[in-house]
Amino acid sequence: MPILLFMSEADNADRWRDAMVEKLPGIEFRVWSADPAADETGDPAEIDYALVWKPRPGVLKGLVNLRAILSLGAGVDHLVTDPELPAHVPVVRLVDRCLTQGMSETVIYWVIHFHRKMGVYARFARDGIWKKMRQADAERLRVGILGLGELGGDAARKLVPLHYQVAGWSRRPKEIAGVACFHGDDQLIPFLNRTDILVCLLPLTPETAGIIDARTLAALPAGAHVVNCARGGHVVDEDLLAALDAGHIAGAALDVFHVEPLPADHPYWTHPKVEITPHVASLTVPHSAAEWMVRNIQRIEAGEPPFNTVDGARGY
Amino acid sequence: MPILLFMSEADNADRWRDAMVEKLPGIEFRVWSADPAADETGDPAEIDYALVWKPRPGVLKGLVNLRAILSLGAGVDHLVTDPELPAHVPVVRLVDRCLTQGMSETVIYWVIHFHRKMGVYARFARDGIWKKMRQADAERLRVGILGLGELGGDAARKLVPLHYQVAGWSRRPKEIAGVACFHGDDQLIPFLNRTDILVCLLPLTPETAGIIDARTLAALPAGAHVVNCARGGHVVDEDLLAALDAGHIAGAALDVFHVEPLPADHPYWTHPKVEITPHVASLTVPHSAAEWMVRNIQRIEAGEPPFNTVDGARGY
Repeated sequence: MPILLFMSEADNADRWRDAMVEKLPGIEFRVWSADPAADETGDPAEIDYALVWKPRPGVLKGLVNLRAILSLGAGVDHLVTDPELPAHVPVVRLVDRCLTQGMSETVIYWVIHFHRKMGVYARFARDGIWKKMRQADAERLRVGILGLGELGGDAARKLVPLHYQVAGWSRRPKEIAGVACFHGDDQLIPFLNRTDILVCLLPLTPETAGIIDARTLAALPAGAHVVNCARGGHVVDEDLLAALDAGHIAGAALDVFHVEPLPADHPYWTHPKVEITPHVASLTVPHSAAEWMVRNIQRIEAGEPPFNTVDGARGY
Repeated sequence: MPILLFMSEADNADRWRDAMVEKLPGIEFRVWSADPAADETGDPAEIDYALVWKPRPGVLKGLVNLRAILSLGAGVDHLVTDPELPAHVPVVRLVDRCLTQGMSETVIYWVIHFHRKMGVYARFARDGIWKKMRQADAERLRVGILGLGELGGDAARKLVPLHYQVAGWSRRPKEIAGVACFHGDDQLIPFLNRTDILVCLLPLTPETAGIIDARTLAALPAGAHVVNCARGGHVVDEDLLAALDAGHIAGAALDVFHVEPLPADHPYWTHPKVEITPHVASLTVPHSAAEWMVRNIQRIEAGEPPFNTVDGARGY
């Protein structure tokens, strides 16, 4: 049976061990630790698979017989923490029912939150104010999703039956029923021009870093809202703050930040138009995500290529 | 062309006039007022249709040739404000795409809000706290909807593709794909026993008044949440407050109250486990609701029975 090494300083190793062992009895599940006294790696040459989140530099390189690196998150940008990542080992991105569902829940929540002015009503309630505001028709509200992969595509599909005008933008052309699909650099500005609520679910790559900046924010209609559930690196913070303060952007819900935890003195914390969540838009749920890990391990053991490997050239 | 009398001290007569005249040109739209100087009723015998919300006692009785009373809201319990309501005139309940959609948006919002602990994260954010909590799988969360009519049925159908375990309870048996349908007095407690988030969308009748009381709250599992988007009269406030304070009910989102606006000294305003909105779970949108009014007026003018009349015996 294969030997796995679990390498994450953010995830719960015990929950992962339970989930993996339940689905693949007989597997050996070792937990890496920076503390030599707690480290279970043993002989690095024995490790077949590594389940990783933000690996420490050089550790993976030492696993000389590694057959695959399985990311514990949907994004794989966290792997850049290890500049010595072995190039010949396939990297598998996580695709998980719970992770996808959880993200769509969060996206739907913020869309309704801004559409139905729920944040304003919450402030009214705190101040004891009873005041009705006019209710906008969902059919007149234009939601735009940056990124139409596993996560963005699912969110878009779930917003359609709620009667929003849904569009999406992706690097390459896509087709989703009921969704206006834009793609490529040329169609980014037209996509933004028709978007009242912008939701970022892009992978973080050199091309998408800083994509939400002064230029793209200015392309949104006045009074638009921004939701970022992807990576902090997608947003140029100073530009978003300036657009919020100028009143061009009416509000933002941010789950991810350049530095996490968000530093205590960051202006987002106290900005009246910014809603903050601590990188929880969707969390990996071991009992469900383990199924994906096991399916891929079984494919590799059977000599088949794993699903959803990272394309090194495009970075996701 | 028929002559309409608009009677509401809560709705915007001008928006209704514009919407109705646009869809039924030539119609005469008069606006009732308690102020004789502003009242446009004219000869009461000329009025064919009354569009009403909380009519003053006796006014409708005087409209001797009235062909139908069209409610400006989905519920018709507000008509009890007039004990002299003419019994022979059909009462038409409002069914409106925007009203239905708006309600489902609100229901979905509060379900995700409680499921994903968004209120807790909002409090964390106000206090500058960065802390992740475990994420529950929607497939393990049991949503229960009291009332499976136009509103409850639509909300139930829209929660199913979000992977919640959806059930509903109604007076008479119903069938909705993917929804566990309970009905009648005997099945109320079993329905509550399996419900983590209870959503009330019932009509207010003598049978449903006070349905959310100590007995039914105790039938919910510990840690359940309550959402009331129907009428304040469905809830026995002291019982809900006691269940919240005892910790049996973890939180409530309330849109409707026994007295509205909610009195300034009501304990709900400051209760840390209660979210308050000012009866805006779904508002009637004239441009959309006018279509329903016009369809029914046209049917009556053509000698056909209107849609969705109130059954006097069951009161909705």
